[in-house]
Order: sequence, then structure tokens, then C-alpha cells
Amino acid sequence: MSTDTPGASLRAALVRQNQTAHLLAAACPSRAVLSHLTSRWAVLVLVLLLSGTRRFSELRREVGGVSEKMLAQTLDALAGDGFVLRQAYLVIPPKVEYSLTPLGREAAERLGVLVDWIEDNYPRIELARAELSTAPEAQNAA
Amino acid sequence: MSTDTPGASLRAALVRQNQTAHLLAAACPSRAVLSHLTSRWAVLVLVLLLSGTRRFSELRREVGGVSEKMLAQTLDALAGDGFVLRQAYLVIPPKVEYSLTPLGREAAERLGVLVDWIEDNYPRIELARAELSTAPEAQNAA
Repeated sequence: MSTDTPGASLRAALVRQNQTAHLLAAACPSRAVLSHLTSRWAVLVLVLLLSGTRRFSELRREVGGVSEKMLAQTLDALAGDGFVLRQAYLVIPPKVEYSLTPLGREAAERLGVLVDWIEDNYPRIELARAELSTAPEAQNAA
Repeated sequence: MSTDTPGASLRAALVRQNQTAHLLAAACPSRAVLSHLTSRWAVLVLVLLLSGTRRFSELRREVGGVSEKMLAQTLDALAGDGFVLRQAYLVIPPKVEYSLTPLGREAAERLGVLVDWIEDNYPRIELARAELSTAPEAQNAA
């Protein structure tokens, strides 16, 4: 194992710190990761990339309703966090492809489980909501 | 099976529709569910409730940094979606307890997997981010 790679000292510093992330703590920087991963468009983009590399225009088409600006911001944030790899090919016309990093794949798989659950159970969720809105106020107990 | 319960006609209507939720579609109402479940405080509240019923003041203390107003709004939304049960006891002083419904537990378990992954892998995530920010621009390929 080489110790003179650019990341070696950073890695050592983080291992030294060996801090445990705790999302319930207000000051824990891991909260930013949760917030990025669960942002509206990030969830959909990550889950889509589970099925393979996409060009910007493909993502734009497949993620219904996303604007060009929001998609670009979402991809920039995910690339900056190391979840998505942005690969630009120096060809004409320019070609840019997005794919999951190994870390991004791990996160996306977990988000995919949530997305699948929502899609599979949406009728139950909608039913619960409808019953609540028509039920008499019955949540008080002596 | 009784057919004259308040929810029976709603249930029948939803079964008749038998629509498949598809989160990638801009118009799919399941998007609201994703958005509620992944809102900043909802994730933390749901995961906390996995370990048991809580009073408002307990949630306020355990979810670091949440304001009284944001916690109340989060709990209202989760109760309205049928994920959280709000139980008010008519005693003095007033006592209100929050717990997961069966539906809420299913969602919370899936969010818990994501939360655990972030907490367990936070050093790797932070390292990836640090390496990206110091790496020379190396994402262009011919």
C-alpha cells in the first residue's frame, strides 16, 4: 500500500479522528449527507442510475418534471459528494455521461428499497390517508 | 367482511382504479409521499419512533436542533399521511403520545436502513468528498 497518494494524509486524519456519525445530533456533519441523498430529485436520479449510465438528456427525459437547472444542480451535488461520476468525453458534439460510484451504488440501493416500497404500497397509503380524512375525531382517549 | 364500514367505498374505488404508482412520472401523486417521508425532520422522527412511543417533549429533546414549530408540523404531516398515530390523553396536565402505525413502521424500517448506512459509512463518504475536492480535474476523457 502506497502512502504517498494524494488522499493518504486525509485518510489518516479521518481514521485518527474515528468519529461516529450521529444523525440525531444537531451539529453532526452527516446531516448534510442525509439531506443531499434525500433531496427531491437526488432520490429519483440515484435510483435511475442503478439501472445504468445515463447522458444528461436521458436523465432529463426519464425524471419526469425536472428542470434542466434543477437536474444540473442535483448532479453537481451528487458528484461533489462522490456518489455520482461525471465523465465528459472530448468529442463533437460534447458528450457527458453520469454513473454511480461504488459509494453511490450502496446509497442508491438503499433508496431503491424505499422507492419500491412506496410504489408497491401506494394504494394502502392513499387508503389510510382517505380514511383518516373522513374518520370522526377519534384520537382522544381518556 | 363488512361492506358498510366508512372506508368500504373508498377501498373499493381504489381497488377499482388499481393504478400503479410510478415515482418517475411527474404527475404521480406518490411523489408527495416520497417528499413527506424524506423531509429533513420526518426521517429522524420516524427512525426514532422505531424504538418506541414518544411524547412531544421527548421527541423535541432527542431530535437535535428541531424547533417546536417544525416538529409540530412534521408530526401533523406524518399523522395526516397515516404513518404516525397521535394519541391525546384527557388528563391534567395534557399528555400527547406519538407512535408508528403499522404502515409507518414499514416506511421507518426502510429509512432506518438508509440512516444506519450513512452513520456507518460517514468516514468513507467524507473521505471521498475530501479527495474529490483536492484531486486535479481528472474527469475528462478523450
